Formats: sequence, C-alpha cells, structure tokens
Amino acid sequence: MSFAEIDYRVTDRVAIVTLNRPEQLNAWTSVMGQEVRNAMEQAKADDNVRVIVLTGAGRGFCAGADMKRLSSISAAGGLTEVADTPIDANSRPDFQRKNTYFPAIPKPIIAAINGPCAGLGMCFALFCDMRFAAQEAVFTTAFARRGLIAEHGMSWTLPRLIGLSAATDLLMSGRKVKADEALRLGLVDRIYPAADLMPSVMAYAKELAELSSPRSLRVIKKQLWETPMQTLDEAMDVADREMALSLKSEDFKEGVKHFIEKRPPAFTGR
Amino acid sequence: MSFAEIDYRVTDRVAIVTLNRPEQLNAWTSVMGQEVRNAMEQAKADDNVRVIVLTGAGRGFCAGADMKRLSSISAAGGLTEVADTPIDANSRPDFQRKNTYFPAIPKPIIAAINGPCAGLGMCFALFCDMRFAAQEAVFTTAFARRGLIAEHGMSWTLPRLIGLSAATDLLMSGRKVKADEALRLGLVDRIYPAADLMPSVMAYAKELAELSSPRSLRVIKKQLWETPMQTLDEAMDVADREMALSLKSEDFKEGVKHFIEKRPPAFTGR
Amino acid sequence: MSFAEIDYRVTDRVAIVTLNRPEQLNAWTSVMGQEVRNAMEQAKADDNVRVIVLTGAGRGFCAGADMKRLSSISAAGGLTEVADTPIDANSRPDFQRKNTYFPAIPKPIIAAINGPCAGLGMCFALFCDMRFAAQEAVFTTAFARRGLIAEHGMSWTLPRLIGLSAATDLLMSGRKVKADEALRLGLVDRIYPAADLMPSVMAYAKELAELSSPRSLRVIKKQLWETPMQTLDEAMDVADREMALSLKSEDFKEGVKHFIEKRPPAFTGR
Repeated sequence: MSFAEIDYRVTDRVAIVTLNRPEQLNAWTSVMGQEVRNAMEQAKADDNVRVIVLTGAGRGFCAGADMKRLSSISAAGGLTEVADTPIDANSRPDFQRKNTYFPAIPKPIIAAINGPCAGLGMCFALFCDMRFAAQEAVFTTAFARRGLIAEHGMSWTLPRLIGLSAATDLLMSGRKVKADEALRLGLVDRIYPAADLMPSVMAYAKELAELSSPRSLRVIKKQLWETPMQTLDEAMDVADREMALSLKSEDFKEGVKHFIEKRPPAFTGR
Repeated sequence: MSFAEIDYRVTDRVAIVTLNRPEQLNAWTSVMGQEVRNAMEQAKADDNVRVIVLTGAGRGFCAGADMKRLSSISAAGGLTEVADTPIDANSRPDFQRKNTYFPAIPKPIIAAINGPCAGLGMCFALFCDMRFAAQEAVFTTAFARRGLIAEHGMSWTLPRLIGLSAATDLLMSGRKVKADEALRLGLVDRIYPAADLMPSVMAYAKELAELSSPRSLRVIKKQLWETPMQTLDEAMDVADREMALSLKSEDFKEGVKHFIEKRPPAFTGR
Repeated sequence: MSFAEIDYRVTDRVAIVTLNRPEQLNAWTSVMGQEVRNAMEQAKADDNVRVIVLTGAGRGFCAGADMKRLSSISAAGGLTEVADTPIDANSRPDFQRKNTYFPAIPKPIIAAINGPCAGLGMCFALFCDMRFAAQEAVFTTAFARRGLIAEHGMSWTLPRLIGLSAATDLLMSGRKVKADEALRLGLVDRIYPAADLMPSVMAYAKELAELSSPRSLRVIKKQLWETPMQTLDEAMDVADREMALSLKSEDFKEGVKHFIEKRPPAFTGR
C-alpha cells in the first residue's frame, strides 16, 4: 500500500506510522485520517507486527485539524457528517467511532510525540496506549480558544489520564503545556531529549515485542480499555474467562518454560 | 442583593464570592449556604460574569460546619432533613442535591483556598472546577475524627481528583495535609505565597474570561462533570452533537476569524 | 486458630497478618490463600481489632503464584475452577469473588510491602486500602511475560490507583518498578528505609485505631470501594442515608464531645 500523507514501515516487529505533512506541522486532513486508519488495519493484519508507534515527520507531531479546513467549515456553517464504520465489529461500540478506534487495534500503540501536539492531534495521542515525548513537545487542547468543545472523546480520555482537575484546566484554558509539566501531570509517561526520543521508544517497543506475549498484550489492551466502563464484577467475569483461556495457550506454556530454562521467550501469540 | 455572611462583587467579568465570617474561619452555616447559592445563581444570570472565584475572608477558607451547629445536632440526636431543590432542572439529578450544585452552574468556578479548608468547606472546594491555594492552606476531611462519614459527595469527588489510595488515607485518617503535599497529591492545581494567591487566581480567571469562548466553557464544563458517569460511547454522542452545534455558532466563527486576523477574540457566548 | 503458612497476631488493636514462606519469598499457595482468608475473618470478628496490616516474612512481600503451581497448571493444560464464596453476603457481588474480598472486610487493611511484590501478590496488595513500602520493595505485574492476562482484578484496580497510562505500561511490559518510581506513580502511598517500615506502618495504624471512629472507618471504606461504580446521585443516596445514621450514633456524640473537652477520643464503634 502506498500513502500520500503518512509514511509506514516495519522494523524489528514494530510498525512505525509517521504523519507526513511536515510543512504544516502534520495538520490533520481527511486523507491523512483515512491513511492512518489503513495503516493501523495493515499493522493489525500483519503477523510480523507486534507493536505500533505513531509519530510525526519534521519538527511537529500534529498541529490539529488543518486551519484551511476549519475556515471552510466556518464558511459553510457546519460539517457534513461522516459515517462511523467499525474497525472491529466485535469490539465495544465505544471503539467503533470514526476517531475512537485505536483501542480496537489489538496491538499496543505508542505515541512518540516529537513536537507540538494540538486539538485533534492530541485526541489521537490520548487514544494511544502510552505517550513518550521529546523535551520539545508542546500540548494544547486548543478547542475553547476556537469556540469549540471537547471533541472526539477528549472529555472522556483526558480525566482518566491526568485527573478531573488538570483536565479541566487544560480543556478550559486551551493553554500550552510543555513536556516537563506534561510529565508531572501524567499526560505523557516519559520525556527525552529530541535525539533520544525515537531510539528510546524503539527500545521500549522492541522489548514489548520480544519479552511480552502478543497474546497477553492483545487481551490486556482490551481489558484496560474496557475496565473504566465496568464494575469490578464485570471485569472479573472477563478476567476469569480470559485467565482460563490463557492457561491453555501456547504462550503460557512458553512463558513458564523459557523462565525455568533461563532463556529468552519465543512467543507465537497463540 | 445584599448578603450577611458572604461578600459578592464582580470585576473584569469575574465574580468573587467570599465566605465572610473571618472570626470563625468562615465556618459554614445555613445562612451562608443559602447566600452562596444565591450568589451562584446571580453569577449564572449575569451576562457580564464569565468566571467565578470562591474564597474566604481573613486567614481561613472554611473551617467546615459550625461547631455549635454540630453540638446542637448531637444534642438533638439527628438532623431535620432539608429538601434538595435543583438549580437547573435540566441538569443531571447528580447535580440537583443541596450541596452538589456547583457543576450545574454553567461557568467555571475556581476555589482560591487562602487558609484552612475542612469538612464541609472541603466538600465545596472539591465541587469547584479548579483549586488554587496559598502556601498557608491546610486541608482536612475531618469526618472520621468526629464519628462522621464521607459527607456531601466527598467519597465520589476525592478519588476522582487524587486517586483511590490517597483519598482513603485522607478520609480514614482525617489528618491535616499542607499545601505542598496537596499539590503533590493533585488535591490543588497550583500553590502560591499568600500575597500572590488572589492576583494569580484573578490573572488566570481573566485569561479564561478573555481568551476562552464562554460558550465553549459552558459545554466543556458540562462534558467534564458528566463524563465520569458515561461510557465513551455516551460521551461521544454528546461530543458529536455538541460539536455540530458549535460549528454553527458565532463563537466558532470568531474563534477562527481572530486567529487568522491575529487579534484578540471578541467572543459573545453565542 | 493456628496457621502453617502465615502468622497472625494482634497488638495495640492492630492485627498483623504475615505471609510466612520466607524461603520462597512468600510465594502464594492454596493453603496460604485459605489462611489469609481465615485470618481476615478472624480480624473482622474481633472487636479488639480496628486496623489490619498485611506484610511478608523475610526479605520478600509475595513473589506471586508459586512457580511449581504454575508448572503443574501448564502441564495439566488448565486449572480446576474454585468456587467463589462470599465473605459478607451483604456486600456487592464485586467483593464476593475468591480473591477480591478485601474490600468486604469492614476494617482498613494496610499493605506493608517489605520486598518484592509480584503477580498475584501484587493483586492482593492493590486490594488493600493503602500501601506503605520499604525502599527495597520491587513491583512487577509479571503476567505478560508468562503469557498470562491481567488477573484477579488488576485491570480494574491498577488504573484507579495510578491512571490508565501507567497501568498500561506496567501490565504490558511486566517490567520491574522500584520503590521510588512506585511512589511517583501512586502505586504506593509512602516509602521508608527497610528498618523504618514496620514502625511507621504501626504508628499510622495505631493513630487510625485511636483517633478515627471505627464506625466511621467501616462506613468510609464501604463508600470508597463502591463509589467508582456509582453515579454521584447513587453515592449521594448512600452518603445522605449514612450521614443521618451517623448523626444518631454514639461515636458522633463522642467525636464532638472529646473535641470540645480537648481530650483523646474513646470511640466504641457504635
């Protein structure tokens, strides 16, 4: 598959999806949105891919919705609605929306946030499973300063990542948050000097690909995204059923075997 | 409207509600409760008010329920129940209780916590949208040391602000928490030397009043308080509907226009 | 009652439950599981016990499920299911599972984490009400590296303690987390040099036993564990009902009286 506004490559069982409109700080377009989705589908289907990294080309991660697009929506007095189509019809409806499908991709998605991350770009970053950032990263929700609302799930994801109070500050003020504060708030998990970001993300991703069972990653990802919407009793129904299945799996056999034999694991994902 | 136990004034589109029984560290009374409510209604109705600040006169924020009141309740062997009356009949029932209505006020409420903040005073501080505190602020849930329980929603708000474990510590021990620890736990968003508290809160409030669309603030506040009780799917139904409405609003037009024209915004809230 | 794999003693109204297979870093067995449960029942029933501490003998807290046990499960191709029996039939079903019953014990349980804490051991630590750790403590979820899933409620508890993002990192990577990072993430509430751990835990536990009403602790614990699954409205129904009951209680009378008389409280728990 060839792409116009993103780049896609696979190395060491890690797929790297790069937003690729560096002159516009990778501002989001319909084309880009469709291409990211196709890339995620491709990474999902490729047995050689165990972990996915989302990053931006040049000095930005994603500046949010393209300003020309916003202007034309403003001029038109609204937006023609685009239908939601599920990436996985068996996933919860929560993850079948146009821009909320990352949790339905059964592999970890790590955001490598190399620079400014705003509006819709930040929505997607928050639907990744983890966020590693460069010291140069700057975050802004942006919406309140454009007369907009907490779009595309950000009112739901942000408080679950950084608490209700900090989420209120960021969404109401639309102010810029630098990497150090982002780390303190829990908006990102780790920060690095710019030159160290991708090597560090790749080292972590490769460790997940090598040392964690792909089967475990698939089930745990599903558990973690569903659990905020479950009672403990519901979460335990899932956990007990999945535990029983895991105890019969090849990966569990290998997980015990390699540990006892003191050698690296050779997980198959089955 | 004139008040006996609070002070109310509006400056720079910010309403300041001051608990005003400084000799009693602003201990909460029925009169004060009714007056705060009237002030909040007034701030809600005043188109010239975009942000609300809640603070205390003198060296305290609010010492909690008046001790004389507690003694008389104890002597009487209980409390005559006061009916809940909704501040906004269209809001969720969650926000129509006697002491849980702050989230139904469609403007940001910032607590400027200038000193001791205890019991019922802390309940109200936690229903504010954000908390800025002086170095002199001290927090205590107080309930467990009085033989009481987690009253007026604190069992619900506190874990959502500081996590389940720290909430347990504070509610079970009733110990005093100083400003530095409060910041580390996420109980407050920012701390300042006493003299800098109100200037800093006002600077932040004025920035919200000037740079954020009042329409955006209204919708975002509603989203943030509802989202802990929603699935992502439910939150997305709200977000998509509100996004479509915002894209047709005056504030969105202005939000794009002032940005392109590189001038300050002139939002109307419509 | 005499125990084979744990130790149980009561001092200063604090019950100390010690996992006691130090040669195996207190790896969890069926016998240990049953004995911990019996000890918790005993602490619940003993009016002289107000607070419970869970810790490990020797240099470990709990290394997780015994490896021999895992090997035999792997060899057998699965596990014979053990029935869940409720510790308190009146508690929510969430807390009636085999390994999720700590929240149904109506007294605070503090984990004193003296060393390595892994897998199933970590599950139990997360169901304690608070976690104090030694500098020597090391945490690992372990599951993903064994081909397993987020077992026994960890997908539910961990994000509520440390946020969704850090929970994802710990569950997907299975990496080791030292005490300093655990404190920063909120996985533990406090850390101490090894020699200071038990004295500090006991000082805190005794303060709870002396200064907090046992009645308040019982109700507040129940509130805190239920509230993540409740709307604010539901939490307020409980809070208003419990407040009315508390205002008629002996402990409330004593809570006001000792405060006015400036003497230590003599709570009865009634």
